[in-house]
Amino acid sequence: MGPLRIGIAGLGHVGCGLIELVQRQDRLRLPGRVEIAGVSARSQSRNRPVSTDGYTWFDDAATLAEDPNVDVFVELVGGSDGPAKFAVESALRAGKHVVTANKALIAKHGNMLAALAAEKQVDLLFEAAVAGGIPVVRVLRDSLAGTEVTRVSGILNGTCNFITSTMLDTGRSYEDVLEEAQKRGYAEADPTLDVSGMDAAHKAAILSAIAFSADLDFSKVSVRGIEDIGLLDLRLADRLGFRIKLIAEGVLKAEGVVCRVEPMALTAGHALARIDGSLNSVRVEGDPLGAVVLTGPGAGSGPTASAVMGDVAKLFRPAIRNAFGRADHHVAQPFIKGGEDEISPFFLRVRLTDKPGTLAALTEALAEEGVSVDKLLQDSADETGASPVAVVTHRCPRRQILSAIARIEALGVTVDAPRLIRIETAS
Amino acid sequence: MGPLRIGIAGLGHVGCGLIELVQRQDRLRLPGRVEIAGVSARSQSRNRPVSTDGYTWFDDAATLAEDPNVDVFVELVGGSDGPAKFAVESALRAGKHVVTANKALIAKHGNMLAALAAEKQVDLLFEAAVAGGIPVVRVLRDSLAGTEVTRVSGILNGTCNFITSTMLDTGRSYEDVLEEAQKRGYAEADPTLDVSGMDAAHKAAILSAIAFSADLDFSKVSVRGIEDIGLLDLRLADRLGFRIKLIAEGVLKAEGVVCRVEPMALTAGHALARIDGSLNSVRVEGDPLGAVVLTGPGAGSGPTASAVMGDVAKLFRPAIRNAFGRADHHVAQPFIKGGEDEISPFFLRVRLTDKPGTLAALTEALAEEGVSVDKLLQDSADETGASPVAVVTHRCPRRQILSAIARIEALGVTVDAPRLIRIETAS
Ligand SMILES: NC(=O)c1ccc[n+]([C@@H]2O[C@H](COP(=O)([O-])OP(=O)(O)OC[C@H]3O[C@@H](n4cnc5c(N)ncnc54)[C@H](OP(=O)(O)O)[C@@H]3O)[C@@H](O)[C@H]2O)c1
Ligand SMILES: NC(=O)c1ccc[n+]([C@@H]2O[C@H](COP(=O)([O-])OP(=O)(O)OC[C@H]3O[C@@H](n4cnc5c(N)ncnc54)[C@H](OP(=O)(O)O)[C@@H]3O)[C@@H](O)[C@H]2O)c1
Repeated sequence: MGPLRIGIAGLGHVGCGLIELVQRQDRLRLPGRVEIAGVSARSQSRNRPVSTDGYTWFDDAATLAEDPNVDVFVELVGGSDGPAKFAVESALRAGKHVVTANKALIAKHGNMLAALAAEKQVDLLFEAAVAGGIPVVRVLRDSLAGTEVTRVSGILNGTCNFITSTMLDTGRSYEDVLEEAQKRGYAEADPTLDVSGMDAAHKAAILSAIAFSADLDFSKVSVRGIEDIGLLDLRLADRLGFRIKLIAEGVLKAEGVVCRVEPMALTAGHALARIDGSLNSVRVEGDPLGAVVLTGPGAGSGPTASAVMGDVAKLFRPAIRNAFGRADHHVAQPFIKGGEDEISPFFLRVRLTDKPGTLAALTEALAEEGVSVDKLLQDSADETGASPVAVVTHRCPRRQILSAIARIEALGVTVDAPRLIRIETAS
Repeated sequence: MGPLRIGIAGLGHVGCGLIELVQRQDRLRLPGRVEIAGVSARSQSRNRPVSTDGYTWFDDAATLAEDPNVDVFVELVGGSDGPAKFAVESALRAGKHVVTANKALIAKHGNMLAALAAEKQVDLLFEAAVAGGIPVVRVLRDSLAGTEVTRVSGILNGTCNFITSTMLDTGRSYEDVLEEAQKRGYAEADPTLDVSGMDAAHKAAILSAIAFSADLDFSKVSVRGIEDIGLLDLRLADRLGFRIKLIAEGVLKAEGVVCRVEPMALTAGHALARIDGSLNSVRVEGDPLGAVVLTGPGAGSGPTASAVMGDVAKLFRPAIRNAFGRADHHVAQPFIKGGEDEISPFFLRVRLTDKPGTLAALTEALAEEGVSVDKLLQDSADETGASPVAVVTHRCPRRQILSAIARIEALGVTVDAPRLIRIETAS
């Protein structure tokens, strides 16, 4: 199988992220090789985080889209109209598959572009357009094709979520936190798209069209942003047990699909209430599925490029991978037995016998094996006279604490087998 | 395009759930029609929740698997060996696609079966085998093919999670809660597979094989269950800030893949710490992805059948659906504008002017429009003399509370525009 030749228009955050991924594609699980047939952006001379020197430069994105050496056109320019739309249409008309991260384009012209792609029998893929690294487009479209979706809702704009959650946590003002979101690179250059709810609305409309087999009509989407939400609102809601968040949703009613974006007050137990910071999260409710929630990074050059590459991976024909997704060129990793050299903090529970000095024996045994104690809790003796003790250790090799346990057991100071449980702190 | 003809072996929880879905397939988003070419189970006369009278009966699953009228063989019998394995092999050898929910079979014989499927150029799909309704198999295999996965971890056995979380919440004993899990249908008939960690290990091994392009070798998986976790352990851990949960994980190391299942103590902030009850949750960590978490129903006839149907949907050739997943036979839903007839509880924030009687004016306006108040919080006046008031209403049509707001504004008792925010309680 020859390589899949992609043309990349747009060499900003996502475009450069994609090039970086192409350059280390051997570590990914692609069905075959990806080759960059050409690149295009506004300025050839601009300094970029990856070198693009080795790639054929095109001044014009549409020329790249139509180039005979391009199998797949990847549009990472942005904007619902203008050069992005023109180049995508050119690519489709020329019979090329298109991968895009452009939610504004798909929300506004998705119907027309999907029809053009169907006519030309090529794929138009846009996983990265909704919720960045969270693979919700394909989950909804393909994995959940066997369930009747009744509602899709989610936190689809990381900037708004960062603003509302940081305001509440820190007591800082809207303007102040928005500025931080811009500095951190969450917000668009023009943050109006974010805070007006428009960006979330684009994404909600795309998800609704997929979930409900609906004809996307962006003019029917109700959009309200977070501009008029103040610290006072967030705080009063918090005192009454609610979290105010910008929620995008699509609901199937008898007459059609109602899609809307607005701040909502979520009760503490709501699946989306604890999604804080710049995370995105999408909840899909269906029958007979119940509800599935997908949470992850909704933007950022890495996660978004990863989604774009996932779409590119779909376009290899034939896609020769086995049932586990392994292609012939992938070196199979072996399964190996985990050893006892694993380093971690541990939780250890023992029940000490009803004799003096047993606690000292326990702590000495730990010390002698070099296991240092972070926390220790001894509870009052139970009805048998045994004292439950819980120890939280600092990080140490599992081997060391196993030796300490062997020592403790040999001393006969415990009434039953100690329970050793690894502690996981990362999340 | 003719219908896709499936043969279903196993008419238990999942098999009957699938038949129910086939019978209402018009409400799903399948690329074409699914027809049941035959069914098989142990006893033809057994009473089942759906009628199977109209379908051709096969006494033997392998005969069904090889039947010339069958395009796709769906194995829902269970067991790593015996009739399930024999029938799946027969189907693959006969050049039929196979869909299965059988994690024990795939964990033990997945390599051999994948090789056989590749040789025969047919698909072997097993989305339902891992985490029931959560589409993690295809997400890992396809959507995340463009990211380098470094760790997969999760809560993959609902019975164990139900037991540990219910014990802690209610103070009941292990035996007592296990019995409830069995009554609720979470536990397998022989719950040893659950509580020993074996079921979670099957699933973790499958996910690891996909995530790391690894040769599945179940003999290398370390398995420890929850049998020796007592209420004392859960409580002491809780007092020290940890949640003990049965965690399955696969990690990529330099020498290969370490896959293990064991109880772990998670800090409160860990993504999996708050997954309670019978839910499943899978966290995938990758570069440059970051981390994505998928949460949902890990078992149950509906969610599992929905996953099986998602796999069946993949087998239509050619799969004529547009970019939004819509096939020609799907009736397109229209997008419609959301009205003001929506019924919900609402959160309303006003700032009342510094005059006597303004609170009474507010509550009267609400009462006159038929909006009844669930909670009301008036805070001390701010530096301008205005009093912030938050109202939580009972459920009412949006129209009604909008009228109340219009009334309040007309009275001139507020110093700025009231903020109306819908409350979402369901999660
Ligand atoms: N950033 C994210 O986290 C994220 C997440 C999801 C989706 N997206 C979407 O991904 C797309 C790209 O976003 P981004 O953040 O990478 O944007 P960006 O950093 O602003 O990059 C835009 C790129 O487009 C190029 N460009 C502008 N006008 C052009 C034209 N007329 N012809 C050819 N190239 C042109 C720019 O060229 P110069 O470099 O020469 O200026 C730049 O390389 C957008 O649709 C966005 O909505 C982004
Ligand atoms: N239940 C879940 O929530 C769930 C979730 C994920 C995956 N799974 C997997 O799905 C599979 C089916 O589970 P289930 O819960 O539906 O099991 P189940 O309710 O016990 O049903 C098993 C079915 O297999 C039939 N069967 C048994 N031996 C057979 C044989 N020799 N030939 C033909 N049919 C035979 C039984 O026939 P009779 O009806 O005549 O007794 C029954 O219909 C298993 O692999 C399981 O691990 C289940």
